[in-house]
Amino acid sequence: MSLSDFQWASRVADIAPFHVMALLGRARELQAEGRDIIHMEIGEPDFSSPPQVIEAGRQALADGHTGYTPAMGIPELREAIAGHYQKAYGVKVDPARILVTPGASGALLLLAALLVNPGDQVMMADPTYPCNRNFMRLFEGQSQLVPVGADSHFQLNADHIEQHWNAKTRAAMLATPSNPTGTLVSLDQLTEISQAVNAKKGALICDEIYQGLTYGVEAQTALAVNDDAFVINSFSKYFGMTGWRLGWLVAPECAMPELEKLAQNVFLSATTPSQYAALAAFQPDTIALLEERRAEFARRRDYLLPALRELGMSIPVTPEGAFYIYAGIDHLTDDSFGWCQDLLEEEGVATTPGLDFGIAGARTTVRFAYAASIDKLEEAVERIGRFIQKRA
Amino acid sequence: MSLSDFQWASRVADIAPFHVMALLGRARELQAEGRDIIHMEIGEPDFSSPPQVIEAGRQALADGHTGYTPAMGIPELREAIAGHYQKAYGVKVDPARILVTPGASGALLLLAALLVNPGDQVMMADPTYPCNRNFMRLFEGQSQLVPVGADSHFQLNADHIEQHWNAKTRAAMLATPSNPTGTLVSLDQLTEISQAVNAKKGALICDEIYQGLTYGVEAQTALAVNDDAFVINSFSKYFGMTGWRLGWLVAPECAMPELEKLAQNVFLSATTPSQYAALAAFQPDTIALLEERRAEFARRRDYLLPALRELGMSIPVTPEGAFYIYAGIDHLTDDSFGWCQDLLEEEGVATTPGLDFGIAGARTTVRFAYAASIDKLEEAVERIGRFIQKRA
Ligand SMILES: Cc1ncc(COP(=O)(O)O)c(C=O)c1O
Ligand SMILES: Cc1ncc(COP(=O)(O)O)c(C=O)c1O
Repeated sequence: MSLSDFQWASRVADIAPFHVMALLGRARELQAEGRDIIHMEIGEPDFSSPPQVIEAGRQALADGHTGYTPAMGIPELREAIAGHYQKAYGVKVDPARILVTPGASGALLLLAALLVNPGDQVMMADPTYPCNRNFMRLFEGQSQLVPVGADSHFQLNADHIEQHWNAKTRAAMLATPSNPTGTLVSLDQLTEISQAVNAKKGALICDEIYQGLTYGVEAQTALAVNDDAFVINSFSKYFGMTGWRLGWLVAPECAMPELEKLAQNVFLSATTPSQYAALAAFQPDTIALLEERRAEFARRRDYLLPALRELGMSIPVTPEGAFYIYAGIDHLTDDSFGWCQDLLEEEGVATTPGLDFGIAGARTTVRFAYAASIDKLEEAVERIGRFIQKRA
Repeated sequence: MSLSDFQWASRVADIAPFHVMALLGRARELQAEGRDIIHMEIGEPDFSSPPQVIEAGRQALADGHTGYTPAMGIPELREAIAGHYQKAYGVKVDPARILVTPGASGALLLLAALLVNPGDQVMMADPTYPCNRNFMRLFEGQSQLVPVGADSHFQLNADHIEQHWNAKTRAAMLATPSNPTGTLVSLDQLTEISQAVNAKKGALICDEIYQGLTYGVEAQTALAVNDDAFVINSFSKYFGMTGWRLGWLVAPECAMPELEKLAQNVFLSATTPSQYAALAAFQPDTIALLEERRAEFARRRDYLLPALRELGMSIPVTPEGAFYIYAGIDHLTDDSFGWCQDLLEEEGVATTPGLDFGIAGARTTVRFAYAASIDKLEEAVERIGRFIQKRA
């Protein structure tokens, strides 16, 4: 038997592998050889899941919660998420509008399937989280990348929507806090953007997966100003639960039957023990722990930001959320992927090249994740400084 | 804000909700009212996950296995799956060709994305697992339903492939044991089918999610005769792990980089504690327990099959796998959905109407799942007999 003459579907060639994966693979090789590698490439908190969540997961297993759940998620969790919006943000969300998904990834998939016909466009900032573009391509849609800069805090704004919306644009997509830039969209801006999208009769997707990870600013939700936004969230980042593969989607009521139908086909349901474990994520003692972790992330940001600026990197807008700093290094290179590779080989610091996030700044930017202890970050800064010196 | 003028993507209207969901919802309502309901509609083993697996899951959590894993799955599990093919089927599979997925559902999604361009067709038996058709539609492909009957054991065969293959056909899809019919494809047939698909330069997808659940026949794998088949499997059914959301895909080597890229975007990775727990699924003592359960399923089939035949239902081919009996009731009704609804209301027996599985037998067939104890099945048969009597 042979598949040698078989051509994969065209979408496959259009989806680029992440450059960071090559770096991650190489970093692991070097580590296996005994090299000391500092990981600033990974989009994952370095904290384990909260012990309360782990214990709840163990209990769920002991209690035999191992069967399929309803496609929308267990009712208790949908209610707990609604309770969290009420308590943390003072926003009332009907649990019937909450769909529990396998990670925010699952929510992104459902939204692309729901909103995008072949040829339809979805507007998003360049730079953006790389999977966003690929989800649109998967469903034969197109991502409409709008280059954004310091003037709009590396975010889309209402002017962008008005200027770039065309006959094929169906939706605009925001992420606040943003991956890779760590910048936020304020509620005032969100209101303006919502109005602009609404005037175009489009849909607004708001990725709030880094919600709760803000420094010096209170966390917010688009739901406070726009009840018709599609809001994506996750237990991965603030709640430290990446491997549990659990997220959620809040959608307008009219979309729920359609989303349920899609979820029934695509996932059947999200992982059951994860859903029960996540009930413990909203307990006051868990939140207290997560707030300590947030303070630690803030200290790291407060250390790393001026340190990178002192190395001459261009970080014109102070990142106030997530755990990323997106730095311009055009004074150092016009091949940031090569720069990242050399930095890894020579100094053992792993980072993510701009190439993964878009087109405009692809070759002159690097993303630094501060999901590592301050000790490690200090060591990294020293190594990066030496690396830059050597090449000067 | 308002989404009132927004039209969902066209695919959404083409994906029908499962009729069984309406029945399941009603069954739960009746149960909440205190009615005694016998569930023969659900495609889920009534056994909990094996205690060894539950304990391994609890241990994985205690050990802090809560982060993202590689998109392909943890190496230990890929090796354990390869070991299982060797031990249970005498087939050598390189772990590099095994991709761990969020359920077989995840594998089906990846394959649709990999193989299907807009307008491409994938041939499959009518009746078939309902999500199959919808996965193709999701990615703008079409399912080419070939009505099958008793003469081909309710399965596609090489003749079907030759007769129905057209310029747009890209792949053929089998399921053995099949949902809804419980029938198998023999290795001889698989060889013939593989040759026919190969002659057309197409791809062969083989869904082996009910592998291991065979009665009076040894379980087999398509990999024994076709190394280039895309083989889907799952921990859901034989291993009793539905809620863990874990499955796998074996694919030709040349497809692995493409599949990895797709998995990185679509899932990031499968649930981590589930992956570690699944390592315990292949232990000899776990397998011994699962074989006892298999024997119990066999006893149920041996009870239910003649009982339904005695009620006059048409079951021309003995189902030898899964936990389903697909019965013709054209002598009773030409509206099997209505019949199932009445059976539920009047006698409290929940079943799945043929409508969910295809077109040809949609209105004259019913699927009975025997994922319930023999006591319950006996009670169900009595009730169904009474129901038929009343309407005669
Ligand atoms: C902006 C953004 N959205 C979505 C995701 C998906 O995360 P998950 O599926 O773990 O919730 C990520 C993960 O890094 C992300 O950075
Ligand atoms: C034939 C078939 N394939 C695939 C699946 C998907 O199962 P899972 O995603 O739980 O592995 C099912 C579930 O019922 C099925 O019957």
